[in-house]
Amino acid sequence: MQVRESPFSVGDVPGVLWTPDGVDGGRPLVLMCHGRSQHKKVDTIARRAARYVERYGWAVAALDAPGHGERVSSHEATLTAVKLRRRLAERRKLSPADAAAAARRAAEAVPEWRTALDHLQAWGPVGYWGVSMGTRIGVPLVADEPRIVAAVFGLSGLAPGDDTLPAAAARITVPIEFVLQSDDEIVERDAGLALFDAFASREKSLHLNPGGHLATPSFEAESWERFFCRHLT
Amino acid sequence: MQVRESPFSVGDVPGVLWTPDGVDGGRPLVLMCHGRSQHKKVDTIARRAARYVERYGWAVAALDAPGHGERVSSHEATLTAVKLRRRLAERRKLSPADAAAAARRAAEAVPEWRTALDHLQAWGPVGYWGVSMGTRIGVPLVADEPRIVAAVFGLSGLAPGDDTLPAAAARITVPIEFVLQSDDEIVERDAGLALFDAFASREKSLHLNPGGHLATPSFEAESWERFFCRHLT
Repeated sequence: MQVRESPFSVGDVPGVLWTPDGVDGGRPLVLMCHGRSQHKKVDTIARRAARYVERYGWAVAALDAPGHGERVSSHEATLTAVKLRRRLAERRKLSPADAAAAARRAAEAVPEWRTALDHLQAWGPVGYWGVSMGTRIGVPLVADEPRIVAAVFGLSGLAPGDDTLPAAAARITVPIEFVLQSDDEIVERDAGLALFDAFASREKSLHLNPGGHLATPSFEAESWERFFCRHLT
Repeated sequence: MQVRESPFSVGDVPGVLWTPDGVDGGRPLVLMCHGRSQHKKVDTIARRAARYVERYGWAVAALDAPGHGERVSSHEATLTAVKLRRRLAERRKLSPADAAAAARRAAEAVPEWRTALDHLQAWGPVGYWGVSMGTRIGVPLVADEPRIVAAVFGLSGLAPGDDTLPAAAARITVPIEFVLQSDDEIVERDAGLALFDAFASREKSLHLNPGGHLATPSFEAESWERFFCRHLT
């Protein structure tokens, strides 16, 4: 199927919707939330979106997260990318202050996604994909959003001082697939396992691979696809 | 493709080979080692073997492990099954004596599998599937058998006093998929993670799911199939 790419916005939050050309609803919708320093049309998301549309006729929506994409100047975006690269190089785990900032960002992003879902109500059932920052935002979103029926999370863990994340995870009962990297520079393996344990979902599957934060193997993307096939169709 | 089931034996070890009818080699071969108290034609193996033959035209071979199947009386087989059920009910982990017995059984089974591979040399490339006891046997087999190019393991872990298992795992470099159950009655999660960590393979993927030793979700069987598709074809 041909892919149509349509910009949209919810309030002043820019979004993008990929759909099969000529179709205006009634198909599964996958929400994709990018990671730290990325934006709604980062290549990995755009490529997977095109594939989901072409192969399955699903719709895919992405938003710029608070402090990302078109919501900041290119100077600010560069600064965020530099900071993230430095954190990875220094293998620095989240401090309580980082965790608090991430929690505030998630609290801002969740209502934006819920408003976007109102805007996209012709589509469904709805799946969610987001790893790293996309998980910190997605866990409270999926916890509070009954329209989302399955979620892919990962590359994230419980952080000292962040009580809202495990509390949200404990409210989630939809099927979860969770990727974790054994040698993640910024997420301790035990912290990731603890977040996985916190989900109340009866179906939850953690995929642990060797390598760092940016080295999730490509076969996991195939697995996400089959996961959404199982739960959205 | 039609499935042909052919009994064979290596010495006095009974085996079974499933092949596409009318084909006598030159296709991928998957070795399947059953778990404790089971036998070479246990329903899960027979069903998967038929599927691999019908869908992909592969061959599948299984042997009765030492102390199992046609190698023991039906009274002995029943006794083993009763003991395993009791161990699961009592959530009893492997004692050092159990681990030693398992190591002896593996030491006996490995040369049997290697002789079987000589017998099946028309087929290849070769994959290995075995969880629980099938992993305790398969890890030293795959470590010493260069004809095996990919392996599915799981439901097993490092046990106190068993030094041969981690040493064998450290010699394995082929791609591994490893299933583990969070609430396994007889394998501690940390012991399973430690075995996973011991493999030297650059590609190794651990799939952790909730539930007990006998509750691996059915979607893992689909994942094993795709794993073998990736590595045998």
